[in-house]
Amino acid sequence: MLTDIEIASKIIPQPITKIAEKLGIPTESVEPYGLKKAKVNYTKINPKAKLILVSAITPTPAGEGKTTVSIGLTDALSRIGKNACVCIREPSLGPVFGVKGGAAGGGYAQVIPMEEINLHFTGDIHAISAANNLLAAMLDNHIHQGNELRIHPKKIALKRCIDLNDRALRNIVVGLGGPTDGQVRDDGFYITAASEVMAILCLASNIEDLKTRLGNILVAYNYDGGPVYARDLKAENALAILLREAFKPNLVQTLEGTPAFVHGGPFANIAHGCNSVIATKTAMTFSDYVVTEAGFGADLGAEKFLDIKCRQNNLSPSCVVIVATVRALKMHGGVSKTNLATPNAEAVRKGCENLKKHLENITLNFRLTAVVAINRFEADTNEEIEIVKQACLSLGVKAEITEVFLHGGAGGEALAHEVVKLCENNKNPEIEFLYDLSDSIDTKITKICVKNYGAGKVTFSPKARNDISKITEMGYGNLPVVIAKTQYSFSEDPTLVGRPSGFEINIREVQLRSGSHFVVAIAGDIMLMPGLPKIPAANNMILNADGSISGLS
Amino acid sequence: MLTDIEIASKIIPQPITKIAEKLGIPTESVEPYGLKKAKVNYTKINPKAKLILVSAITPTPAGEGKTTVSIGLTDALSRIGKNACVCIREPSLGPVFGVKGGAAGGGYAQVIPMEEINLHFTGDIHAISAANNLLAAMLDNHIHQGNELRIHPKKIALKRCIDLNDRALRNIVVGLGGPTDGQVRDDGFYITAASEVMAILCLASNIEDLKTRLGNILVAYNYDGGPVYARDLKAENALAILLREAFKPNLVQTLEGTPAFVHGGPFANIAHGCNSVIATKTAMTFSDYVVTEAGFGADLGAEKFLDIKCRQNNLSPSCVVIVATVRALKMHGGVSKTNLATPNAEAVRKGCENLKKHLENITLNFRLTAVVAINRFEADTNEEIEIVKQACLSLGVKAEITEVFLHGGAGGEALAHEVVKLCENNKNPEIEFLYDLSDSIDTKITKICVKNYGAGKVTFSPKARNDISKITEMGYGNLPVVIAKTQYSFSEDPTLVGRPSGFEINIREVQLRSGSHFVVAIAGDIMLMPGLPKIPAANNMILNADGSISGLS
Repeated sequence: MLTDIEIASKIIPQPITKIAEKLGIPTESVEPYGLKKAKVNYTKINPKAKLILVSAITPTPAGEGKTTVSIGLTDALSRIGKNACVCIREPSLGPVFGVKGGAAGGGYAQVIPMEEINLHFTGDIHAISAANNLLAAMLDNHIHQGNELRIHPKKIALKRCIDLNDRALRNIVVGLGGPTDGQVRDDGFYITAASEVMAILCLASNIEDLKTRLGNILVAYNYDGGPVYARDLKAENALAILLREAFKPNLVQTLEGTPAFVHGGPFANIAHGCNSVIATKTAMTFSDYVVTEAGFGADLGAEKFLDIKCRQNNLSPSCVVIVATVRALKMHGGVSKTNLATPNAEAVRKGCENLKKHLENITLNFRLTAVVAINRFEADTNEEIEIVKQACLSLGVKAEITEVFLHGGAGGEALAHEVVKLCENNKNPEIEFLYDLSDSIDTKITKICVKNYGAGKVTFSPKARNDISKITEMGYGNLPVVIAKTQYSFSEDPTLVGRPSGFEINIREVQLRSGSHFVVAIAGDIMLMPGLPKIPAANNMILNADGSISGLS
Repeated sequence: MLTDIEIASKIIPQPITKIAEKLGIPTESVEPYGLKKAKVNYTKINPKAKLILVSAITPTPAGEGKTTVSIGLTDALSRIGKNACVCIREPSLGPVFGVKGGAAGGGYAQVIPMEEINLHFTGDIHAISAANNLLAAMLDNHIHQGNELRIHPKKIALKRCIDLNDRALRNIVVGLGGPTDGQVRDDGFYITAASEVMAILCLASNIEDLKTRLGNILVAYNYDGGPVYARDLKAENALAILLREAFKPNLVQTLEGTPAFVHGGPFANIAHGCNSVIATKTAMTFSDYVVTEAGFGADLGAEKFLDIKCRQNNLSPSCVVIVATVRALKMHGGVSKTNLATPNAEAVRKGCENLKKHLENITLNFRLTAVVAINRFEADTNEEIEIVKQACLSLGVKAEITEVFLHGGAGGEALAHEVVKLCENNKNPEIEFLYDLSDSIDTKITKICVKNYGAGKVTFSPKARNDISKITEMGYGNLPVVIAKTQYSFSEDPTLVGRPSGFEINIREVQLRSGSHFVVAIAGDIMLMPGLPKIPAANNMILNADGSISGLS
């Protein structure tokens, strides 16, 4: 089979202005970036489409293909005559040059131009890095220039960020040198996807909201323990100016010419993990079916999508698609990555417990409608697939085979028909949120861990208790909660695959994100700055003399 | 008078495709970025235009207006019926949010969209930062993953970079934390304009040359003292892939609809200080008169433009414009910034010695033709202007008054007529280079300092001597030389204004830039990472609810 970039380069994309026309976006709202990409600047947003959330089982090294299914499903919806549109996150350069590769789908279900989407795209992520780092520079400059706000250099909350995998920047000391070189202090870089500015860009409704949220970023505490916000540094306008273009959603297309919005890319552990509110709402204004994706497994991504993004914006998915592969379910059944090609019905059956927990979360906790997409691989046996189907049926959920990687939209038609049917039956779904905003912070955390992860017990470190008191005293007790934990398990132990239960989750620390408007409860080690592998993907890429790229995936 | 952004926002730009048509650029080579900007991807370059270099007297805090004159002169050439085009550097975000503000001209001589050009533009500078920092990440990763190349962590030549003014990042320690967090070592960030990748992008002729130069970056020495290059890390393709779009020149327009290429922005101290070779050559392919600008005063900018960029590319300016203001000449005559409004013929006369040295350099050393542009301010008296004119005439050089800031192209017609006359008389000018490439490195340095700066003596520190031996042994003795010294004086002492002579210049260190293909001789302290002022320009900017920007200059 051809590589992703070979497949993508064989397609001549439609002019992006045609794609915008297809959606009925007014010409004056379309700002082309080259012939294949555009920014959409439309302010009279009026979401009317049915929303379809694509999430997945707990991720494994086998790969589930959530983005591929999201894109393929949208192509399939187009093929069966629906005005459909997909909304996904923007790829980060870190994984592109590291292990994982790009994030523009795969095989015959990709968004294009894939090489541009994977590399800089329209510059949004760089703009976010620049805004975050300008804030950091203004903060350090304030301390250096006399420190009128009495910022405590050992109590700085803000980190710098960069859109690369660079472990050497995790823990650094800045401000060395002489008296003109600033204040010496501990610092570090997050990957940009983990920055609060990224989360803010993805949650802001409009420019005024963007500015307010940027101004509300807690950057540090002063010597009295009082908060110092970005607005105290008079930074919010400059930051918003840097984000002015980045805030507009990006329009591209799939290999089959279906419109696609690719905008924003926050992590699903430290942040809420889905594309921008403004992209989703713009897409919902101009099409009838909007397929969107949430990061990591449904325990992390779908929960945050529902409890945070949907709640804040009065959105609700008519249908939740849970993507699973037989291979990944085998891993949840205890098979190692090297033995995935061997048929193993028993392991699949065992692994289905993971899938079933995610389905129960969607249908019993959130009271939404689910369907399973079995992203089929060649080695899957009929017996194995039947086991998955039966496991789903035991919960009243249908499982459809998709082969969009191999066949594009044509490989997703069965799923598309099922999705349309569910959407017709769920015109105004109401989400049963896992917690009320008025619950105390520890109650909210406990509800998520117990209901959604299956934890038996939730404990809080003294630091976490102290953080919660302080955040509550500061008046932020009513914010929603983002739980930052490993994506590889329902528990905080990444090796506990399948469906662990009764485990304890310990919350070590709770951080305030007053700009993005949530608190982050940290359970276990989370990686906010990945490293490169021994042989980075960067080593195997080639820029040819004609400007074409080989080796990008 | 209106502010720059107010003036710029009153003009409705012509569609960028029209500007490209005006130049006769084939449609398939034009990649629009929105309606007002485009990347030009044209590979059959054939420079035919007359080239006009705009340089200036030694910079002072009074400001000279070199970019403004470059743009206004090009508008004036268009007004008098010439097919003209301007080539300038891209603004850096550091100064935009710091003290200096943007770099898109001023008053009625600007390139537009000024707010986009000043903020991210087409993403080139971010792409350069990403390429430089990916190389740094790959270098640190190599050491962390076993250090097969035996890189000495205390002998790393590469710095990270960021496009901001951030003094806290000048001197840092990276790799702190645990064993999985990389190697502890000293590091630091340059502003991106000072990075070697920036110089490379601006000097490369095509994609193959770009890759070769990137591969040739000296990143470190190993434990045996041997060089380690970017190609040893297999990084050159990934870096070139990140620069694929950035390498294409950007086309915009002036307020009067004259085509303008704005591409690349290397410093004129640590690097060669002018826009990209590819932009200049593309502009020269499609127009008859190309006006281009070199950084800082003519001692630094014009020298490097001629000895490096022109020599390497067989280019030669038919005419060199030296910009001067009466105010700045007064400062060179010893007047302080607060007394510039007071007429002071004597100070102007004294200050003209600075201008005359620059003119002598152009006409007697380089054997080129010069004209002076007096960038007129309201307070200038006729007597003062007459003094400047006579000083120029004493060297056989004409001085023309320009008022392009106030009147756009109409304010530069006299200069334009003189420039056309000189160009007609100098169809194939031959540059007398200050040194031969075959001269030894210390001879090249000495020739520049003595002939161009007026130094009486050039000394070399033991380190510099040692650096020169090593670089020569490595086979790089034939590279041209970039002298990194203060831009505020011919000497290495920034307080010595006017025309100092007989001074000593001490070369402290010589660095190899094997990728950009020059050596850097460091004389005095040079600033590679600026800081923010007490009240940064960022504090006074506003993003309005309609997306428009106030307070950007």
